[in-house]
Amino acid sequence: MPFAMAIEMIHNFSLIHDDLPEVDNDDFRHGKPTNHKKFNHPTALLAGDGLLNQAYIVISDELAYSAENQYKENTKNKVRAFNEFTKAVDRMIVGEYLDTELEGKQISKEMLEYIHVNKTGALLKLCVRMGAILAGANEENITRLSRYADKIGLAFQIKDDILSEEGNPEITGKPIGNDKEMGKCTYVSYYGLEEAKQELNKIIKEAIDELEIYKEKAEFLRQLAIYIRDRNK
Amino acid sequence: MPFAMAIEMIHNFSLIHDDLPEVDNDDFRHGKPTNHKKFNHPTALLAGDGLLNQAYIVISDELAYSAENQYKENTKNKVRAFNEFTKAVDRMIVGEYLDTELEGKQISKEMLEYIHVNKTGALLKLCVRMGAILAGANEENITRLSRYADKIGLAFQIKDDILSEEGNPEITGKPIGNDKEMGKCTYVSYYGLEEAKQELNKIIKEAIDELEIYKEKAEFLRQLAIYIRDRNK
Repeated sequence: MPFAMAIEMIHNFSLIHDDLPEVDNDDFRHGKPTNHKKFNHPTALLAGDGLLNQAYIVISDELAYSAENQYKENTKNKVRAFNEFTKAVDRMIVGEYLDTELEGKQISKEMLEYIHVNKTGALLKLCVRMGAILAGANEENITRLSRYADKIGLAFQIKDDILSEEGNPEITGKPIGNDKEMGKCTYVSYYGLEEAKQELNKIIKEAIDELEIYKEKAEFLRQLAIYIRDRNK
Repeated sequence: MPFAMAIEMIHNFSLIHDDLPEVDNDDFRHGKPTNHKKFNHPTALLAGDGLLNQAYIVISDELAYSAENQYKENTKNKVRAFNEFTKAVDRMIVGEYLDTELEGKQISKEMLEYIHVNKTGALLKLCVRMGAILAGANEENITRLSRYADKIGLAFQIKDDILSEEGNPEITGKPIGNDKEMGKCTYVSYYGLEEAKQELNKIIKEAIDELEIYKEKAEFLRQLAIYIRDRNK
């Protein structure tokens, strides 16, 4: 659980900083005022910093507990999970940087995918890999689950772009066409709405195919993929 | 060395975020344009985020190396150093938050000290404690060195406030009286310039007294305390 809490903190850190006036300049998220609107700009900056660091407090407490109690195998897996954690967060920040820096510019399809693989995909992949690593999975399974994670990560972003174009603002809590207005390159602006939907379906099918070998044990991951495809917010 | 590099990264993260328009709004540091002036606001935000996280990349690489190679005692000390690291960074961020939130307000001497013990003192104390922990020092020595660190941390801030009042702007790279203009509570605004100087001398003497037992082995720490008192930038 501590690693799951740490992921949640990283997620919240990134939302708070992404909403800031100098990045996405969003006043609302899921219909509620964003941190800098509810409090103020420096508070949101430091709340984000604090949350990013808090993730590592939780991880280090967990590691300290294992190390003090001489849980050797346990400590080794947790150190590996911690190591992968730091690198996924780095990729997320790099993705966010590229997304911000290239806003309103024409970018290639490859760059668009590179940004999303990092910006939103890295953390999702981390969740799946950390689960496998902490459960003591072998390398083959870690690699297979990573492919699944890459696919749902990409699918998540495509769905996000579709919702931004045609979602119900009362459900998504975001104004329609906000991305377009900001001049953002999205899957929809690149592929068009219909092709983006086909791409989404194809990728989700591929993700589910990766899970076949696990039969009913992977039901949660299968449902997660379907949820990502069908969600309306 | 990795832990020293990590400290450097945290230091730079905090400078970049503290200089941002919504916090201290500084255009120059040591005579050079600050990150958001040289690049732009979102870049400085994400550069700070990236550096904070980079510190943990370096630490986790170091831990992974120790854990893979079964260096047990070593790993245990490094896990403890990592654990203390996360908490010192948290205190630094809390100190920065209070400093920002209470700017321009009348605050008690106790609050002023609390802010500085956290904002600047926590990281300095961490440097000293991590050195002792990683070198395998016993608890008695770790505690004694912590007292030394608390004192030089406080002294550092008092000296900062004195320099901000009467330093040479060509050497400090900061305009004179900037703190006063921003309505900041400082040691100088609280004690007055002369009393602040006396306080500085008294605290540095106490710090050096803590080192007596180590004789010539503590010469570096002694010189560091003297440097903090006598620096002109």
